Amino acid sequence: MIELAVWAPRAQRVDAIVAGEVRGLERDARGWWRGARVDPGTDYAFSLDGGPARPDPRSRWQPYGVHRASRAFEVAWLPRRGDSFRAPPLAAGLVYELHVGTFSRAGTFDGAVAHLDHLVQLGVTHVELMPVNAFPGARGWGYDGVALWAPHQAYGGPEGLVRLVDACHERGLAVLLDVVYNHLGPDGNYLAELGPYFSDRHKTPWGPAVNFDGAGADEVRRFFVDNALYWLRDFRFDGLRLDAVHAMVDQSALHFLEQLAHEVKALEAASGRPLVLIAESDLNDPRLVRSWEAGGFGLDAQWSDDFHHALHVALTGEQSGYYEDFTGVADVARALARAYVYEGQRSRHRGRAHGRPLGGDVPATRLLGYAQTHDQVGNRARGERLAHLCGPRLAQVGAAIVAVAPFVPMLFQGEEWAASAPFQYFTDHESPELAEAVRQGRRAEFVAFGWKPEDVPDPQDARTFERSKLDWEELGDGPHADVLAWYRELIALRAREPALRDGQLADVRVEHGSRWLEVERGPVTMMANLGEAGIERPRPPGQRVAASVAGVEERGERVLVPGACAVFYSQSRR
Amino acid sequence: MIELAVWAPRAQRVDAIVAGEVRGLERDARGWWRGARVDPGTDYAFSLDGGPARPDPRSRWQPYGVHRASRAFEVAWLPRRGDSFRAPPLAAGLVYELHVGTFSRAGTFDGAVAHLDHLVQLGVTHVELMPVNAFPGARGWGYDGVALWAPHQAYGGPEGLVRLVDACHERGLAVLLDVVYNHLGPDGNYLAELGPYFSDRHKTPWGPAVNFDGAGADEVRRFFVDNALYWLRDFRFDGLRLDAVHAMVDQSALHFLEQLAHEVKALEAASGRPLVLIAESDLNDPRLVRSWEAGGFGLDAQWSDDFHHALHVALTGEQSGYYEDFTGVADVARALARAYVYEGQRSRHRGRAHGRPLGGDVPATRLLGYAQTHDQVGNRARGERLAHLCGPRLAQVGAAIVAVAPFVPMLFQGEEWAASAPFQYFTDHESPELAEAVRQGRRAEFVAFGWKPEDVPDPQDARTFERSKLDWEELGDGPHADVLAWYRELIALRAREPALRDGQLADVRVEHGSRWLEVERGPVTMMANLGEAGIERPRPPGQRVAASVAGVEERGERVLVPGACAVFYSQSRR
Repeated sequence: MIELAVWAPRAQRVDAIVAGEVRGLERDARGWWRGARVDPGTDYAFSLDGGPARPDPRSRWQPYGVHRASRAFEVAWLPRRGDSFRAPPLAAGLVYELHVGTFSRAGTFDGAVAHLDHLVQLGVTHVELMPVNAFPGARGWGYDGVALWAPHQAYGGPEGLVRLVDACHERGLAVLLDVVYNHLGPDGNYLAELGPYFSDRHKTPWGPAVNFDGAGADEVRRFFVDNALYWLRDFRFDGLRLDAVHAMVDQSALHFLEQLAHEVKALEAASGRPLVLIAESDLNDPRLVRSWEAGGFGLDAQWSDDFHHALHVALTGEQSGYYEDFTGVADVARALARAYVYEGQRSRHRGRAHGRPLGGDVPATRLLGYAQTHDQVGNRARGERLAHLCGPRLAQVGAAIVAVAPFVPMLFQGEEWAASAPFQYFTDHESPELAEAVRQGRRAEFVAFGWKPEDVPDPQDARTFERSKLDWEELGDGPHADVLAWYRELIALRAREPALRDGQLADVRVEHGSRWLEVERGPVTMMANLGEAGIERPRPPGQRVAASVAGVEERGERVLVPGACAVFYSQSRR
Repeated sequence: MIELAVWAPRAQRVDAIVAGEVRGLERDARGWWRGARVDPGTDYAFSLDGGPARPDPRSRWQPYGVHRASRAFEVAWLPRRGDSFRAPPLAAGLVYELHVGTFSRAGTFDGAVAHLDHLVQLGVTHVELMPVNAFPGARGWGYDGVALWAPHQAYGGPEGLVRLVDACHERGLAVLLDVVYNHLGPDGNYLAELGPYFSDRHKTPWGPAVNFDGAGADEVRRFFVDNALYWLRDFRFDGLRLDAVHAMVDQSALHFLEQLAHEVKALEAASGRPLVLIAESDLNDPRLVRSWEAGGFGLDAQWSDDFHHALHVALTGEQSGYYEDFTGVADVARALARAYVYEGQRSRHRGRAHGRPLGGDVPATRLLGYAQTHDQVGNRARGERLAHLCGPRLAQVGAAIVAVAPFVPMLFQGEEWAASAPFQYFTDHESPELAEAVRQGRRAEFVAFGWKPEDVPDPQDARTFERSKLDWEELGDGPHADVLAWYRELIALRAREPALRDGQLADVRVEHGSRWLEVERGPVTMMANLGEAGIERPRPPGQRVAASVAGVEERGERVLVPGACAVFYSQSRR
């Protein structure tokens, strides 16, 4: 038996509806309602003040989608394999972002398990799942989630997720989960009926901001902190990726993110399992990843879009939207040497000064570096991957720059073989009005950038989703296999050479021209050629070619890199 | 000749209107319009896109009020006395808050000058002027200011203000100015017509928040930073009090307050004049006053309402409004020992957890401690001072607790003699609709707390203002003079004894009962008796009675403090 409980501080009456039977609950001083006990597996809902049946906001299982009954369930009831797994240090790792619905043909947790050995062979240390909590419909990226505690039923529900986490751990893979605490999706979000979950003082681009600092915020913060602890403790995730923390507005003396870090580190200490928090932040604010002693929030890392954008512009020449703030190779060099490109300079795109220096006391491994993410691929009209835009040669250069960068590298599913599938924006909204609004909104967004309406895929069309699935068949011989071999070489080099993983910005030496870039980090020198002609550079003393895309010509004391890039390495230097 | 200039980035056309003549201005790349040069003393206005004449938002002089023409003027044109004055350290000082309109009978800058010698004799080191920038009408507290660069004409305009600042400095008094950067008053605020001064994402209780972090924010921040530098550099203020910084929402990596602190400290370095920034903050967030190295904003100090509220409740027994969060003597003891009362506990009034510990590394002199302020007196229905509420005996106890507290003490005008004048809420809105709205709003606010409407003074009535003026005549012999003598004794003791001014929380020893409190700080022991009966305490070893309200009875190794309080002191201990 478990006791149902729901926080509804403003309700005059709350009933649990269990198998058609209405059971009145009792309110405690904090506004929690309790008193109904049910057997495991029982379906139930809540009704406030005689209103309609609503799912439990902390429901562990939504077998019928986000609008209907919850099912009494605890992960602890499942048989588990041993919990002896301990994640390797993130700073020395490699993150791999994947979307459960499109990573495998089946589009499920179990489908993902079938490809985990590929990740192990690639050298991945941390798998990062895009959000898996329940959202409306079957197909979606997951950022419109509303049942934050219930693994999406179409992916396999909580039982499937446990199997995936255990399968990762069995193979030595840590597994991270993307969680969205800055807003909730527009459909199936009943939180506002229950309590003061949303702010009346702050807004986000996606609707009202979460109430982290107004009256009633303590319990709202608990909702999100408890959710984080739930994934980490009950499912045994090894860390979380926190979506868009810049959309969290919290003026409290103890910022929500710091509270979360305190509680997650307490769980780490109690469990003996290393746990990490990684923020998606576009603030360029080192406070997020600075230690508590230094006045920071103590998060383990943050995504670094500046490095991505600089690299993307250098490789593709694009200048629209936020890419207008970046100039090419010079900004890549700047990011490699200083971490953030914007450290307080005026951003044209933002219309204001942006960011501040990371600071010499913060290791660069507090930043994740990447050439592709679900956002950067998927937020394009047609979801093209980098290799689709700049060709496989330059995509390989991009991979090499990421591999020798001082940041923790991250790949997006399929990047490692320049997969032919795009990653497009897909939804499955159940409300026809919302579905149409999303369809039209998406189209209008890109028509404004000069696209023809018919060239923008319809997010609601199931084919948009199907088209975005990886085609594992293409990974035989041929060009995809060549790209994969290149990624494996780079990843193996990074794994072998500690100087690449020490996060010391002071030791990164960068030289560059308008179409070439040379990065030296201890015994490793990477020469990247983004232009058409070969580049000639002094031979790195004592180093030999460890990997190259198109060979290297010896020219006495100099070397010529004819195309793409080459990595020089001297193990003896250590 | 000076060149007129105005920032109006969205305007298609901007004209200067000078003596009835319309002169077209030229736009630069940043959106500033320039090109008209005028003689000193010329009246002028701006018109955007052919619209109505508006005052210069950076007008240095509004001789006809906030709605009409600006006058070309620079403080530098005035003859000044030497600028050799250097403010003493705030941490060792005593702040005196005054309102120019009610401090003297004349209600002007020159009227205030006449009473400065009284402040010198009292032992004040820093005079703090409530806002003096122009607001609508003649009478007001100043927090509805809209012409942030123009000293209020009814007080004597810029020339009068220079005379007041110089007169302070001549007497060795530092002078601080209260500035309001979190919102602008509702009447005469033309900023929104000019540029993106206000946020579309954040709100304050007084209207839209200032745009510190959206598009165009750089120039908006400059407006406020330049304003701060203007008062400090041109008028030679020695520091600023920043109104309600909790209503500034800024998600930038460089918070506005830290930017302001950087620029003010740069001016300090350049000018060789010590400059301080003091925040009014209800965040209980030590980040504001922590050093830059420790991840703070580097402000010099903040007001500490927790200490005030605890003391007020202990002295008056009031429990309504925000006083419900405080319990009496125990919270006074807590504040004395730990600085903030709320360090993360749940606040009933706020409906959430509040604050965090100041931290042992931050001196308590980064907080101002006080028993009365314009807010705490004036935001009551009838503006009663503390002595009006709890009687002169307990008010004297309150003064003694402030005097031995580890914070920088602050007094509110007239407190030092328990002045009979209240400090009521008064306005002089020129718009009849606004005047009526303020009148009704004020009344409704207090009727909700059980007041009869006719007992709430009408803010617009000139008698409400006149009633709030200090009566310096009452300061002859008699009870007012006795209170003044008590304040002088306490202030002299604090000035004499460095242990009272060292800000070391670790050295504050506090014991208390439900109606008594004993504070020991090095060679000083203060026994405060808030009850009716005398209190008997161990005699502080080696210390002798330095001051007492009603004498001390010797009882062997113990002493009896029959009423109010006594201070024991041993100079030889040092």
